[in-house]
Amino acid sequence: MKAVGVVVEYNPFHNGHLYHLQQAKEQTGADVSIAAMSGNFLQRGEPALVSKWARTRMALEAGVDIVFELPYRFATQHAETFAEGSVSILSAAGCDTLCFGSESGDLESFHNTIVFLEENHEAFQEKIKFFTGEGHSYPKSLALGFQSLAPSDSFIDISRPNNILGLHYIQAIISQKSSMKPETITRKNAGYHDEHFASATIASATSIRKALFGTAGEIGTIKQYVPETTYEQLINYKEHYGGFHSWENYWPLLKYKLLQSTPSELKDFYEVEEGLENRLLAAAGSSDSFQQFMESIKTKRYTWTRLQRVCLHILTNTRKDTMKTNQKTVNYLRLLGATEKGRSYLNSIKKDLSLPLVAKLSGFTDPDIELDIKASKIYALGQSGKGQEQLLSEEFGRPPIMLKS
Amino acid sequence: MKAVGVVVEYNPFHNGHLYHLQQAKEQTGADVSIAAMSGNFLQRGEPALVSKWARTRMALEAGVDIVFELPYRFATQHAETFAEGSVSILSAAGCDTLCFGSESGDLESFHNTIVFLEENHEAFQEKIKFFTGEGHSYPKSLALGFQSLAPSDSFIDISRPNNILGLHYIQAIISQKSSMKPETITRKNAGYHDEHFASATIASATSIRKALFGTAGEIGTIKQYVPETTYEQLINYKEHYGGFHSWENYWPLLKYKLLQSTPSELKDFYEVEEGLENRLLAAAGSSDSFQQFMESIKTKRYTWTRLQRVCLHILTNTRKDTMKTNQKTVNYLRLLGATEKGRSYLNSIKKDLSLPLVAKLSGFTDPDIELDIKASKIYALGQSGKGQEQLLSEEFGRPPIMLKS
Repeated sequence: MKAVGVVVEYNPFHNGHLYHLQQAKEQTGADVSIAAMSGNFLQRGEPALVSKWARTRMALEAGVDIVFELPYRFATQHAETFAEGSVSILSAAGCDTLCFGSESGDLESFHNTIVFLEENHEAFQEKIKFFTGEGHSYPKSLALGFQSLAPSDSFIDISRPNNILGLHYIQAIISQKSSMKPETITRKNAGYHDEHFASATIASATSIRKALFGTAGEIGTIKQYVPETTYEQLINYKEHYGGFHSWENYWPLLKYKLLQSTPSELKDFYEVEEGLENRLLAAAGSSDSFQQFMESIKTKRYTWTRLQRVCLHILTNTRKDTMKTNQKTVNYLRLLGATEKGRSYLNSIKKDLSLPLVAKLSGFTDPDIELDIKASKIYALGQSGKGQEQLLSEEFGRPPIMLKS
Repeated sequence: MKAVGVVVEYNPFHNGHLYHLQQAKEQTGADVSIAAMSGNFLQRGEPALVSKWARTRMALEAGVDIVFELPYRFATQHAETFAEGSVSILSAAGCDTLCFGSESGDLESFHNTIVFLEENHEAFQEKIKFFTGEGHSYPKSLALGFQSLAPSDSFIDISRPNNILGLHYIQAIISQKSSMKPETITRKNAGYHDEHFASATIASATSIRKALFGTAGEIGTIKQYVPETTYEQLINYKEHYGGFHSWENYWPLLKYKLLQSTPSELKDFYEVEEGLENRLLAAAGSSDSFQQFMESIKTKRYTWTRLQRVCLHILTNTRKDTMKTNQKTVNYLRLLGATEKGRSYLNSIKKDLSLPLVAKLSGFTDPDIELDIKASKIYALGQSGKGQEQLLSEEFGRPPIMLKS
C-alpha cells in the first residue's frame, strides 16, 4: 500500500485542511494518509482549542487514516526541530511521500533555495547576525537576510511561514536520509495568520478560533468553513469538557508559577534567554490576564510566538537540560487513532517498523513520553471539575480511537 | 518602660486572646505589649484567614502596642523552631517578660519538666525512636515517650499543644541566653483544636474559623466570641478582598504544582520525607479539593499539621537547602504596626537595637525577607481580581499600620 504523510495541528480541522488532504491523496495516488499531529500544545506555544483526542477524531472522520502524535519535544519548537520530528515520524511510518502545503506551491523553488542556502551558508549567517544585531526577531532577520542576498523569483519567499516549514521538511528528509519524496500543494486563499474570513468556504484556523472564542452566536458562523464532523466535535467538546482551551485558562497557573520562582530558577527554563527572567517577573505581578502579560513583555526582539513558547515551557516546567539535546528524530510512534484502512496498513508494516508502536502508555517508558504525559496533565487543568477529571484520565485510560468505516 | 511579649497568630483575634493580653499586662505590670505574630501562613501549615495587615489592625485595636512579623522561616515550622524565632524577636525588641498561655498554667511544672528532660535526654530519645518506629507521629511519640518515663503530677502534660510551645519558649530563652523572664497564664476554656463553641464568650480560633466558612448566616454567630473591632475587620476584609483565605483557594495551584513536578523534584522540598513524593503525586491527579487530597495522603505516621506544612512548602517553592540551616534567631525586626505608645517605646529603644528595624521593604535585603515576600505574593493568589491586586501591592507599598489613640 502507498502512503502519503502530512504534518498537521488541526486546530481545528477545517475545509482548507480537507482540501489539502484530498489533493495530497490525489496527487500522490496514495492508498492511505498518515498525519503527524501535534499533541495538546502547539508550535505557536499555545494550548490546542480541544484535546488531541478530539482533534484525532476530527481528522479520522475527515479522511485521515492514521494519526500519530508529534511529541511535545518537537511540537512546541521552532520550525527546524518541528520539521525534524515530523519527518522522522512519517518516515518511520513508511510514508512514500510527505505532502505539505506552502505559499509557493513549487517544489523546484524549494530545491533552488536549499542549494543556494548551502552554497551561501556563511554569508547568510552573517546577514542573520547583522539583522538580529539590529534588534529584529530571528524569523524577521532570516527573511531580511535572505532578501538582501537573493532577491530572485527562482527562490521561495522565506518570509512566509508555510514556505519556511516546507524548507525544513525537505532539509530534514535530506539529513535523515529518508526515502520519502517531498511534494507540495499551494495553500488556498487564507494566510496562516489571517484573522478575518476571506472566502466562502476556506478560512484560516486563526480566524475560526477567533470566532469560537467570541459570543455564543458567533460559533455558528464557522459552520461554512469546517466539515460537519468538525463542527459537531467542537459543539460536543464545549458541552462535555466545559469550554475550549486558551492561554487565558492557564494564566492563573502561569502567574503563580512565575511569582513562586526566583530569577535564577526562571533562567533554567527552555528558551528563557538572559535578561528575560526579570522582565517576566516584573510583568507577572501586575498583569491580570495572559493578553495583558504578553503585551507587557513583548518587544521587537522577540516574536509573539517565541514568547508564548517561553511561557509554555515555564508552565510545563520544561528545563533547558531536558530540551537541549541533539535529538533529531522521535523515539516512538504514538498512535492516537486509525480508520479500518489505517489499521490494515499498520498490520502490513508492523514487523518492519524500526520504532516501537505505542498504543497504550502502561509498560512503555521514555523521557519524551514523560514530557507528553506531563503536558497532558497540565492541559487538563485548563478545565475544572468533571471536564478536568476526564481529560486527566484519558491520557492513561483510553486506547487509540479506532474509527469503523 | 517595661514591655511584655506575646507570641501569636491571631487567626482571628478573639476574646481568649484579649483575656490573655490583659492578664499578661496585669501580671507583669508592663507599660507596653509586643506581639511576635506569624505572617500570612501559619504554624499548622495553612493560610491565615485574613492578611497579616488585617490581623495587625485587629491586634492594635484590641490593645497590643507593637506587632512584629514572625518570618516564614520560623512561623511555618514545628514548635521548637517556631519558638526559637519568636523568642529571638521578643528578646531583641527588649521585652522584660514573655507571657504565654498554656494548659498547665504553672511555671514550676515547666521548669521541672525541662530539668527532667535534660537529665533523661537519652532515655527520652530512645522512647521517641521506639514509638515512631511503631508508626506513631512525632508529636504522639513525644507524648507517649514522656508518659512512659515520667507519669507524675509535678510535670506538664506534654501532649497538650500550648504546653509544648511553652516548653520550647523557655528552652529557647535559656539557649539564647535571653534576659526575658517567662510567665504563663492558664488558657481559659476552649482547647486549641476545639471545633465547637463551648462557652458564652470564649471560643477557639478553630471553631470561629469553622463558622466563618459556613453559610452567610453563620458569620453573625461569632460576634459574641470576638471583640467588635475583630468582627468589623472580618466583615470589611470579606467585602474588600473577596473572601477569607483557606487552603481550598490554593488547591488549583497546589494541584498544578504537583502535577508539573517529577518525584525527584518533590523530594527537594522542605519536609518531604522519602517516599512521600509518590504518595503526593498519586493523590494529586485524582483529588478535586484540598480536603479530599489531604484525606488521601493522611496516614498514622504523619499528623495533619505536618502534611499541611509539606503542602505549604511545595506551594511556596521552599526547598530543603533554603530551610535546613542552623539559624535559630531572626535577622531583623519587621514592624507591621504600632500604637502611639508602641511608637514612643520604639523611639526609646531604637538606638540600642541589635537587629535592623524594617518598616518598609525597599532598600532592605535578606534571604528571610525574600521568603516572606514570596509567601505574600502567593498568599495574594488566594483572591482574584482587585482583591489579589491589592494584596500584591500592599506587601511593597504600604507602611506599617500606625494606630492613633
